[in-house]
Amino acid sequence: MDTLTVLGIAGSLRRASFNRGLIRSAVELVPPGVRIVSHPLDELPMFNADIEALGDPGGVRAFKQAIASADALLIATPEYNRCVPGVLKNAIDWASRPARQSVLTNKPIAIMGATTGGGGTARAQAHLRDGLGYTNGLVLPQPEVLVPFAASRFDGDGNLHDAETEDAISELLVALAAWVRQLREGLPKAA
Amino acid sequence: MDTLTVLGIAGSLRRASFNRGLIRSAVELVPPGVRIVSHPLDELPMFNADIEALGDPGGVRAFKQAIASADALLIATPEYNRCVPGVLKNAIDWASRPARQSVLTNKPIAIMGATTGGGGTARAQAHLRDGLGYTNGLVLPQPEVLVPFAASRFDGDGNLHDAETEDAISELLVALAAWVRQLREGLPKAA
Amino acid sequence: MDTLTVLGIAGSLRRASFNRGLIRSAVELVPPGVRIVSHPLDELPMFNADIEALGDPGGVRAFKQAIASADALLIATPEYNRCVPGVLKNAIDWASRPARQSVLTNKPIAIMGATTGGGGTARAQAHLRDGLGYTNGLVLPQPEVLVPFAASRFDGDGNLHDAETEDAISELLVALAAWVRQLREGLPKAA
Amino acid sequence: MDTLTVLGIAGSLRRASFNRGLIRSAVELVPPGVRIVSHPLDELPMFNADIEALGDPGGVRAFKQAIASADALLIATPEYNRCVPGVLKNAIDWASRPARQSVLTNKPIAIMGATTGGGGTARAQAHLRDGLGYTNGLVLPQPEVLVPFAASRFDGDGNLHDAETEDAISELLVALAAWVRQLREGLPKAA
Repeated sequence: MDTLTVLGIAGSLRRASFNRGLIRSAVELVPPGVRIVSHPLDELPMFNADIEALGDPGGVRAFKQAIASADALLIATPEYNRCVPGVLKNAIDWASRPARQSVLTNKPIAIMGATTGGGGTARAQAHLRDGLGYTNGLVLPQPEVLVPFAASRFDGDGNLHDAETEDAISELLVALAAWVRQLREGLPKAA
Repeated sequence: MDTLTVLGIAGSLRRASFNRGLIRSAVELVPPGVRIVSHPLDELPMFNADIEALGDPGGVRAFKQAIASADALLIATPEYNRCVPGVLKNAIDWASRPARQSVLTNKPIAIMGATTGGGGTARAQAHLRDGLGYTNGLVLPQPEVLVPFAASRFDGDGNLHDAETEDAISELLVALAAWVRQLREGLPKAA
Repeated sequence: MDTLTVLGIAGSLRRASFNRGLIRSAVELVPPGVRIVSHPLDELPMFNADIEALGDPGGVRAFKQAIASADALLIATPEYNRCVPGVLKNAIDWASRPARQSVLTNKPIAIMGATTGGGGTARAQAHLRDGLGYTNGLVLPQPEVLVPFAASRFDGDGNLHDAETEDAISELLVALAAWVRQLREGLPKAA
Repeated sequence: MDTLTVLGIAGSLRRASFNRGLIRSAVELVPPGVRIVSHPLDELPMFNADIEALGDPGGVRAFKQAIASADALLIATPEYNRCVPGVLKNAIDWASRPARQSVLTNKPIAIMGATTGGGGTARAQAHLRDGLGYTNGLVLPQPEVLVPFAASRFDGDGNLHDAETEDAISELLVALAAWVRQLREGLPKAA
């Protein structure tokens, strides 16, 4: 089987972000046959349908092209105010267009996230799973990678140093690769 | 292809419930090759893990067996207090057990719902989609059947008389049958 | 000021439930001027508007009376399948009636919860806060008491042994008492 | 009593947006003693904590100042992909800082929203209510103004022409003014 290309997207612009650290860890932890390429969100303007009507800005075109080229997405989301950060949601709002025919259609997607508090981004992930389903994205429903109390698991540069979380990321990547295969080839007959 | 058996579940015990009416309409509107059988929730006790440890009560065994025997589920959910009704959630709590090995694993599921207010059960459906994903159920993400202002669309016995909603149900059933096929056989290669 | 009576509600019927343990800890940790009385959910039947139309069953009358008599509620919620347990949601569905005139109207409410996974009941609490607002309950928005990885914080009988969580409960109870006062007397003028 | 100044915020940058139209209608429909001033979101950059650490950009300072000067907020939210639009969420992410001491603390807030589909922004409003509670904002829980099927209620310039929706907006504004008073002066003693 060919190598799976997974597009890694961290939902924060902060340099030392925990969630950028999660993506860097995922790059290290990939199973055989998977590679992760990252795409930052810095070049995306605020979504405005009046601007979209004139043609996608360059940063939007590049972002959509990166999604279209990937076999799957891996999103690391912070949680701000019990919800998806505006920065990440804005990226999805651009990518979801045009409705029903976007680059997210039938795209396999896995989600993880880290937060300083006790919730581990459970709410932001819930909003993302449901919202990406709206675009006809195919979000891996399990396993969950919820990383609460992140300050004790990352260093000051946002680098992960926590074996339990690394194991969870590895498990998620294996499940994502199996999800891509299952979606392409169909469920095992015995199931 | 063999006939698909879809288990219809209405999340209300009220006889004249709008959502029981949605299931009755779906029975009438099935496309060729699909049949719907209903299962009421009256015989399910409150979930209690201490009781579960002694063995599933009879009503629970019957409910799980009905799910296991079906090719897919069709849920019509009310929305009480901006959330899934307790009656329906309790049924899912029973069916979701044992965790990771339940009858909901890999089960294709479609959701619809009607409500008197302006939200059309959008929140209850969001909670259900995410929660059923937790059980490894495979919830059809689109199309949405959100039926707001239901009092104008149903008669006093809970029978639907609204062509627009009937069209939406028909579209949902066709999409559910395609979803079952796609999950079994894999995505179209061109995608 | 008179003693505040807080009604403690644990959203699980299991004897050794973590969340029943949270309520027991809260009883021990009350600040001066607050007492907690518990009300179990065992006597509540499944909500059915046809039965309600004949008059509330005895267990429902007792539950509503307990809410009406209390100055505030303290809810400890499990999270099943990324959502409020059916058992607890069903109790709220009964208590929320009749709509707009229920015993929950203007009732101050605090929420906490413990779960085995990494999310600490963040999603169940989100659904409860929003749903109880629908009843015109007045839910304390902060602080959050999200208790992830509960198996390491409770013993086999569901008794809490974790100083950090005890501190969080104490802080919540102090904030609830202040919330009741603020709602009765108005915000500080300086704010 | 002095005039209440309400800051109107529409969560879309599109000129003919339905939700900008909702705010314009609200300006027309204010009850005596209330005035609404609008603040657009065009001047807010993407939230980035590294930039914030250097000092709030000018557009952010102006937005925070407008919130601080208002007695209450009125938010009209679109719903993109079953969630708050990135543009609006980003504005809240800026305004919510610094955590626990932001201009949103103790600020009374009302929410409404219009969408083309059947859900009337129920999900976006749920995320906003919960998220603004995280900031210690005091969100009016009722009445809901959910405006589904908006294309039939607005003209091509985003101007509302629907008496039912106008009544709902009027009711919301009266409730918001009462909410501000109640929060300041305390609940009626009889309650």
